[in-house]
Amino acid sequence: MKNTYSYTELYELTFNIFTYIGCSETDAHIIAEVLMAAELRGIPSHGLMRISDYISMWEQGRINVKPNIQIVYETPTTLTIDADNAYGMIAAKFAMQKVIEKAQTHYIAWGCVINSTHYGIAGYYALMATKNNMIGISGTNANPLVAPTWSVSRMLGTNPIAVAIPALSYPPFVADFASTPIARGKLALLEKEGKNIDFGFVQDKDGRPSQYPGILKEGGAIVPLGSDYEHGSHKGYCMAAIIDIFSSVLGGANFGPYVPPQVGYIKPNEKQVGKGLGHFFGAMRIDSFRPANDFLLSMDEWIKTFKNAAPDIEHNEVLVPGEPEFRHEQYNKQHGIKLNKEVYNDLIKITKKFGVPFE
Amino acid sequence: MKNTYSYTELYELTFNIFTYIGCSETDAHIIAEVLMAAELRGIPSHGLMRISDYISMWEQGRINVKPNIQIVYETPTTLTIDADNAYGMIAAKFAMQKVIEKAQTHYIAWGCVINSTHYGIAGYYALMATKNNMIGISGTNANPLVAPTWSVSRMLGTNPIAVAIPALSYPPFVADFASTPIARGKLALLEKEGKNIDFGFVQDKDGRPSQYPGILKEGGAIVPLGSDYEHGSHKGYCMAAIIDIFSSVLGGANFGPYVPPQVGYIKPNEKQVGKGLGHFFGAMRIDSFRPANDFLLSMDEWIKTFKNAAPDIEHNEVLVPGEPEFRHEQYNKQHGIKLNKEVYNDLIKITKKFGVPFE
Repeated sequence: MKNTYSYTELYELTFNIFTYIGCSETDAHIIAEVLMAAELRGIPSHGLMRISDYISMWEQGRINVKPNIQIVYETPTTLTIDADNAYGMIAAKFAMQKVIEKAQTHYIAWGCVINSTHYGIAGYYALMATKNNMIGISGTNANPLVAPTWSVSRMLGTNPIAVAIPALSYPPFVADFASTPIARGKLALLEKEGKNIDFGFVQDKDGRPSQYPGILKEGGAIVPLGSDYEHGSHKGYCMAAIIDIFSSVLGGANFGPYVPPQVGYIKPNEKQVGKGLGHFFGAMRIDSFRPANDFLLSMDEWIKTFKNAAPDIEHNEVLVPGEPEFRHEQYNKQHGIKLNKEVYNDLIKITKKFGVPFE
Repeated sequence: MKNTYSYTELYELTFNIFTYIGCSETDAHIIAEVLMAAELRGIPSHGLMRISDYISMWEQGRINVKPNIQIVYETPTTLTIDADNAYGMIAAKFAMQKVIEKAQTHYIAWGCVINSTHYGIAGYYALMATKNNMIGISGTNANPLVAPTWSVSRMLGTNPIAVAIPALSYPPFVADFASTPIARGKLALLEKEGKNIDFGFVQDKDGRPSQYPGILKEGGAIVPLGSDYEHGSHKGYCMAAIIDIFSSVLGGANFGPYVPPQVGYIKPNEKQVGKGLGHFFGAMRIDSFRPANDFLLSMDEWIKTFKNAAPDIEHNEVLVPGEPEFRHEQYNKQHGIKLNKEVYNDLIKITKKFGVPFE
């Protein structure tokens, strides 16, 4: 394992793995681009770490590497795309491109994708809009791990949403966040390390607060953002529910507890209430409400004002949404990308099996 | 003070107060309708309790009771409305009507209102869309009380958002929530009662967690939904920031720390970065992505599935967003509306001064 890898090395590695299993070159480029965007932006949980799950899903016949992605419903400002079980990012990028085209003509547009799978970081698609002087939105549902407020049933995924807003002299504002206080990956890591966690992240099978990070295996669940009812977990539940409905009910994908898991070792629910997993995409021209330049100047002032907020006694500065990821991107482009040991081992296994060069 | 008041009594009281100060009958009807919707739906913090603040704002010349509300920018799918310092609900209802009209033709539409004031419950406007077989969205910014994660500066309001989604045989799904764990009104109440609060709601002037509900008077702030960074307060900060930008930067209202306070006794910031306070409104036809009936059947199934989630050991049922408010509405319509003693006293003062009948 090298100390760091260049963007090009890891991009080509990803590209080679996905062309090996039968993806077209165009599709493999998209997968590599989205996964590498996560690596650059300091979100390795959605980067190359996912490749082994993506491959196991393909090995189980749950991914179609020769998909017929098509528009199945359309109006001047909206559309639904059937991903035909493709890797999520392929259909997602196509959908966002179409939504941006529609918004170019009609100022705003909205699209959804059904019959899809894990699509990587939501922020990637939202950011496509900012390059076109538009606000971009994207969200997806995910396999159920989260119990609604007052419930013990796992009904919702960690359902992320991203909103990206362009500015003039600053990088775009990008809020890209899950609707839970913690990610499943972080729980797994703490469990491996034998550590307990603070209250406010998970509950046991009866709904009691728990500190055991492995509680999901014992019928427990992650709680919504807010942690408990007193601290507003019903608001996190509302957010996750909205993202779920926009991802599923709009276009006809599976919702809530029926969303198919995105790892090879967990089988999908036998009952299906729609097609695959779903995402949504929105774009809105920034000159929809006043001239574009007025918007951009005002957005610069917003960012400057928030950057200048007074930090608390434990910090040196206040960050604007998207700033940490932007800084990671600048740093990683210059210094290369570090791989986690386990991710490296997974990649070695896959590349050996496929005869793809990697060291 | 009566034990309960009928809808009609309180509606007429509100109507009479606002026509007394010079509002047109049409405008007073809108104000009464929106405030009474809050009373019916069990959200008294946005009901008649607000009248004394609304009147004090008028007494200070900060409300225009003869406003010239007009569209100042428009595209086929979007528009900006200048509220001319009207009571917020008058411009807001007009804006949502226009947005619904545009969505009728173009499937989706988005609007914003600038130069506005407090607009009552966000859910009222979102629900206007569901009556037209559309999904409705509305949000607003509010006077700054909330510190971003890692900051001690009050940069954001409790910025609420509402999303309403129609179903076939159930009442609509309505998520109507603030982006903070607690409302200012609740803090004030606890302070009056001399009670401490749990950690996770407010911080002191240096950003340390505090249990004192009066800490806002000592330079403290409310924290975003999530409570602290570990529990995801940066996600609550993201939400509040998105709602703020959509309310202000889109159309040109004041953002964040410059949003004018909505009570007579706090003066607006001398520096202004836009016009008044801002709101946003969106509508999307439910047949934008597949036939309307398929959407409605699926939404029914979503609601049924979530209602049937297993409750935890301390509760008998799991609620769907909008269900508590819907039940309040059914109950209050039948049994009448209770007024809080302080609200009653405020109303008595106002009605005596104005010679409006009330008992």
